[in-house]
Amino acid sequence: MNKGRVYIISGPSGTGKDTLMKKLFEKLPELAFSISSITRPIRSDEVPGEKYNFISHEQFEKMLAEDEFLEHNLYVGNYYGTPKTPVLKCIEKGQDILIEVDVNGAAQIREKMPDVVTIFILPPSLEELKRRLTSRGTDSPEVIEKRLNEALREIEGSVDYDFVVVNDKLEKAVDDFINILSVDKCKTELNLGLINKILNK
Amino acid sequence: MNKGRVYIISGPSGTGKDTLMKKLFEKLPELAFSISSITRPIRSDEVPGEKYNFISHEQFEKMLAEDEFLEHNLYVGNYYGTPKTPVLKCIEKGQDILIEVDVNGAAQIREKMPDVVTIFILPPSLEELKRRLTSRGTDSPEVIEKRLNEALREIEGSVDYDFVVVNDKLEKAVDDFINILSVDKCKTELNLGLINKILNK
Repeated sequence: MNKGRVYIISGPSGTGKDTLMKKLFEKLPELAFSISSITRPIRSDEVPGEKYNFISHEQFEKMLAEDEFLEHNLYVGNYYGTPKTPVLKCIEKGQDILIEVDVNGAAQIREKMPDVVTIFILPPSLEELKRRLTSRGTDSPEVIEKRLNEALREIEGSVDYDFVVVNDKLEKAVDDFINILSVDKCKTELNLGLINKILNK
Repeated sequence: MNKGRVYIISGPSGTGKDTLMKKLFEKLPELAFSISSITRPIRSDEVPGEKYNFISHEQFEKMLAEDEFLEHNLYVGNYYGTPKTPVLKCIEKGQDILIEVDVNGAAQIREKMPDVVTIFILPPSLEELKRRLTSRGTDSPEVIEKRLNEALREIEGSVDYDFVVVNDKLEKAVDDFINILSVDKCKTELNLGLINKILNK
């Protein structure tokens, strides 16, 4: 049995990454999702264990000392990280897993697991990115400006990814994403077992 | 406009490559096919300019002296080669092109065009390969044995390809092949223009 594969998805606010991921897991229910450990307080609309495990600062630092994170980050006093054990357990049993991280986290994971496949979600244009960031109508111009600058900084990092998926039409973007995962299985290095079997090696 | 992409398909007798290619061009009529130049006599069921251009030994050697082949081979006294100019013209105008060659030819092209995408068609098993090679019923055991050994020698070379497509169910294999071509377009290095445009660079 082949090991599972690790796929990384990144994409800033305004790229439609969350909606794309929702559709993705509807279409690929067998794909696992890596739950991040974070130390910030839980928000009213969040369910523990869904996207995040909420742990204490002390717990996080203990796990950090035990080298238990594939990547982590300290942001405005709170820790965010991807625990290693669940990811390794998942791929050991042959299940693929998706990790959602930012550009910085992706770079950290790539260093520890060089054969991860990294995919960045892009908006179709700068204008559309701006439109999506302003269309909620609830944020101040300052907040929107800040989000736009953060998004552009992340997009600068997209050049280090294996693939980009342009989220213009959602269904097309979801299909592109699923195709990337499917084609990954055709890589020759993942099929050496079959090749050797045919050759009786 | 992006340049067209060059895709290489290989797969020995018994992998079903020809049927797969037929289906492929039905589904992707915009994909170009590289016509080989060969010096052997035309067979009764062949149409000049369809799969091969039949040229003289002298013509071939003149083109060879002018470095006009991406790959070539001398086999039982006859030359076989992939002319360079039609491939370059095709990709310059943005059209993708498929080149059908053996493992040796693929290696030569990869050396000249390192960004080609190489795809090898595999049989699902050794047993199925043997079954397909014998099922025509017209060949002697010696000829079948020779074909099998040639096929296995080619399959040894499949490890140098980017992708393998297992031709178990034809429709699935065609879809896999088309997905490889489609996902190729999501490679980050082919989308730097869009990334830079979003970043106003």
